[in-house]
Amino acid sequence: MSYELYYWPTIQGRGEFVRLALEAAGADYVDVARGSAAEGRGMPALLRFLPDGGQDAGLVRPPFAPPFLKHGRLVVGQTAAILLYLGPRLGLVGKSEAARLWTHQLQLTMADMVTEVHDTHHPIASSLYYEDQKPQALQRAQDFRKTRLPKFLDWFEAVLESNPVGGARGGPYLVGGRLSYADLSLFQLVQGLRYAFPKAMKRALKNAPRVAALHDGVAQRPRIAVYLGSERRIAFNEDGIFRRYPELDG
Amino acid sequence: MSYELYYWPTIQGRGEFVRLALEAAGADYVDVARGSAAEGRGMPALLRFLPDGGQDAGLVRPPFAPPFLKHGRLVVGQTAAILLYLGPRLGLVGKSEAARLWTHQLQLTMADMVTEVHDTHHPIASSLYYEDQKPQALQRAQDFRKTRLPKFLDWFEAVLESNPVGGARGGPYLVGGRLSYADLSLFQLVQGLRYAFPKAMKRALKNAPRVAALHDGVAQRPRIAVYLGSERRIAFNEDGIFRRYPELDG
Repeated sequence: MSYELYYWPTIQGRGEFVRLALEAAGADYVDVARGSAAEGRGMPALLRFLPDGGQDAGLVRPPFAPPFLKHGRLVVGQTAAILLYLGPRLGLVGKSEAARLWTHQLQLTMADMVTEVHDTHHPIASSLYYEDQKPQALQRAQDFRKTRLPKFLDWFEAVLESNPVGGARGGPYLVGGRLSYADLSLFQLVQGLRYAFPKAMKRALKNAPRVAALHDGVAQRPRIAVYLGSERRIAFNEDGIFRRYPELDG
Repeated sequence: MSYELYYWPTIQGRGEFVRLALEAAGADYVDVARGSAAEGRGMPALLRFLPDGGQDAGLVRPPFAPPFLKHGRLVVGQTAAILLYLGPRLGLVGKSEAARLWTHQLQLTMADMVTEVHDTHHPIASSLYYEDQKPQALQRAQDFRKTRLPKFLDWFEAVLESNPVGGARGGPYLVGGRLSYADLSLFQLVQGLRYAFPKAMKRALKNAPRVAALHDGVAQRPRIAVYLGSERRIAFNEDGIFRRYPELDG
């Protein structure tokens, strides 16, 4: 039974964290909103699940927003909850409860960071254009670069440093001696941050060499390398979470 | 073995979502940072777990920030992950994987909302005072009141409305026919929003009568009522997430 991912079709966004897990595992999945309406896919197929999209899917448990995953009759929203569900099924998390909780805790901290990245260009309202909140974005981005970015990266570096079996299977990995969905998400964070804040990230990664090495290791995994070179990987752009506005970097 | 909750001792904050779960279940727990340093508690006991607090706890899996929970040797951070761990142990979540995922998904959406509430008074930087970002806060709070608050409440109302067994055991409940940690968290959100935005919430709850009824039902539960009247319940104040700045309401 294949997985159906529902996410906006023209951006990486939060859906990318799910795509990377599905790709890394070689899972059978459909990126529904990128399909054609003639096949029952495309944007109409996504919108019918949303509260303000007509709700003719008649769901008892409607998602608040994309991404959401459909697997058989189950529909699950919230990026971190999707990965919580997929982790054991795709072999992308350890078997113990402690490993699963810790992996999830890492993911939730990355989710917090993603929200902060989004708010560097939208500090006032998601409903307004960037151009309508640019002075405030300059202020928020400055604090993000100086305070928040190093704080998050330092923490991930410390996590990698304190992982007692990080290198056992050719790591480094965040949890134990094998790849988890949290590693894939940290890879994506580094990719996105390098796109959005090339100058600030160059400085910040000097203090986080293990984070940089994890990024490089994930990029070189065969399935991920194939995915990144394929048309399935949407390019970064200025509609997504990670946007290259040079005035916000520095 | 008692639970140890670590959170800032003078605010409800994100720790309150965990306190409410522990209180509703009548669990044996210690609110560590509110104890005395002479007993090995208080703020020093909290700070030693944090990356910038000395790290002499020597944790392999250090939390990024409070709240975090210690239970035996396990230390788990991130509010939603703590509740994911506590839910089955405290009888505050259903038994099926689908029920647990859905309850968690609700919690994660509430966590997103909590972050947005925080950012109404701190849209630029957590490291600055409210007074230093007040014009921006007025703008963000306006968007929150007009756009985000109704969107979130409408969704929770729809969730309650579509729960097929909501009323079976004297509900309404978000998931199935019994209390879950998500209900306790929604109660806390309504309490906090009523404190911070009394005018906007009065309007918004007119369209969300089931959310208001859930709040009232939780408040009347015997253990919760006792807790709310006790000294263990910290009063809302202007250091927490929900702050009453009348200029941000309207």
